[in-house]
Amino acid sequence: MEKRCFGVDIGGTTVKMGLFTVDGKVTDKWEIPTRKEENGKYILEDIAKSVKERMQRDTLTLEDIAGLGIGVPGPVKEDGTVLKCANLGWGVFNVADTVRELTGIENVKVGNDANVAALGEMWQGGGKGYNNLVMVTLGTGVGGGVILGGKILTGSNGAGGEIGHIRVNYEEKDVCGCGKTGCLEQYASATGVVRLAKKALEKKEKKTTLVADDLSAKAVFGAAKAGDELAMDIVEKFGFYLGMALAHISQVIDPEVFVIGGGVARAGQIIIDEVSKNYEENVMFALKNKAFKMAELGNDAGIYGSARMVLD
Amino acid sequence: MEKRCFGVDIGGTTVKMGLFTVDGKVTDKWEIPTRKEENGKYILEDIAKSVKERMQRDTLTLEDIAGLGIGVPGPVKEDGTVLKCANLGWGVFNVADTVRELTGIENVKVGNDANVAALGEMWQGGGKGYNNLVMVTLGTGVGGGVILGGKILTGSNGAGGEIGHIRVNYEEKDVCGCGKTGCLEQYASATGVVRLAKKALEKKEKKTTLVADDLSAKAVFGAAKAGDELAMDIVEKFGFYLGMALAHISQVIDPEVFVIGGGVARAGQIIIDEVSKNYEENVMFALKNKAFKMAELGNDAGIYGSARMVLD
Repeated sequence: MEKRCFGVDIGGTTVKMGLFTVDGKVTDKWEIPTRKEENGKYILEDIAKSVKERMQRDTLTLEDIAGLGIGVPGPVKEDGTVLKCANLGWGVFNVADTVRELTGIENVKVGNDANVAALGEMWQGGGKGYNNLVMVTLGTGVGGGVILGGKILTGSNGAGGEIGHIRVNYEEKDVCGCGKTGCLEQYASATGVVRLAKKALEKKEKKTTLVADDLSAKAVFGAAKAGDELAMDIVEKFGFYLGMALAHISQVIDPEVFVIGGGVARAGQIIIDEVSKNYEENVMFALKNKAFKMAELGNDAGIYGSARMVLD
Repeated sequence: MEKRCFGVDIGGTTVKMGLFTVDGKVTDKWEIPTRKEENGKYILEDIAKSVKERMQRDTLTLEDIAGLGIGVPGPVKEDGTVLKCANLGWGVFNVADTVRELTGIENVKVGNDANVAALGEMWQGGGKGYNNLVMVTLGTGVGGGVILGGKILTGSNGAGGEIGHIRVNYEEKDVCGCGKTGCLEQYASATGVVRLAKKALEKKEKKTTLVADDLSAKAVFGAAKAGDELAMDIVEKFGFYLGMALAHISQVIDPEVFVIGGGVARAGQIIIDEVSKNYEENVMFALKNKAFKMAELGNDAGIYGSARMVLD
């Protein structure tokens, strides 16, 4: 029988789980709640229980399982040690060892959720066919994942691909969640786009269809597409800082492709157009003409990538 | 007999060559001129001739040679294809294949000179003991090399580690050699420091011991150490932009250590102090407290790194 692998993506509210064939087909997908009480001590037990139930139901033995991969919301070292997952209440411990013990599955890999999503997009999403890619997730914050030679770049402190906190504007006065000012996240996340819109509305310099008490990244991009000048200014800023950050990244690692995902990216082609234009203007000759792709797996990127981690 | 390897570093004027033991001791070092006539067609022939002579002199056979590594001034792909070495007159061809044919040595590796120098510093220089490092060479330009997991990050176009052209100042009016404005190289190279000094002298806003027709990076750092205010302003700009660029790099790849070399770095501790201060101010929490080291191999970093390339 062809082997299977589990992909698990631990979020703040639910744990997404998937059972995959080793060639990348998902045969089953489900979710369980993330029990955060008592510093999240039940989370891994719940996952192990759910994995065992699924194996029993599908009459799978340990020999049928190629491995189990887990994405977690925080920095993770190569060996599976988490440094701090504030969202889950976790401190420092080795997630891989714990899950091995709880499930009996030997091949357990653990990665940061943004990095794992990047690997998922490489395997079966917008980055399929590439080995060296950077994924940017434009959600509430800006997440990033770097894949080199088909493998996640973890970084020496598990903080590789933390591109949301590249400082792209030295003049910014507002403080980012990280404590610095001028981070990419302040311009390119959903929250960041709304922040820019609020500021622009306060200035009242341009007529606009945007309304202060009903702002969203979707509304801003929608208005920009319809020719709203104030919204177009915001989209221009968004594109400038995101394109600049991707240019910085390229100067360091020279990837093949950028894959852009997250809620903000649902605005569509306007995102790729703005970002690639600004990228080209700010990168040196040898790095021009990179591919820019839309992410394709949505919220499933994490389970795909987690499963893919165990197949090296 | 213990095997040996050759390390070759092709520069615009001379080719540096070294014979190494596989544990990193150089047993012989020499140079030959870089013959650039007829689009550099004699360069590799001269190298092969010199290698064969050295083997004959030391009664080494092909069985005694673990390999031959070459650093070249330009982008190189993983397979040894150079894309353009303007300094040598070279177009696109596979250097590794050519050298294999000319020398009979099977294990030939080719890398970009800045990347190769970084590998040399990791092997036997300021980065010894580390596996994930970024080397910054502050010379006429600003070169960079990224080592991850003990291996050179080449990049998909051979342009990995081109950190001298990270755009750190969006307000700059002067044009960089690459055609963009505001590249790191315009502030952190020897040429860049002199450029900043000239501009500062023209403004005549501060008294200074610096003299317009006798400017050098060395003079600027010397004056700054002696308390010259105008020179201190320049050093501050240098540190701000270099520290910022290293912060950007860290947000992408989270290395263990930065190794700083090149002529400008001879100014000593003041460089590390300025750069690390600005780095810490511009990087997110998880990436603070990186090691900053001085390069130790000087102009020999290239031959060390070239030799090291063949030992994987």
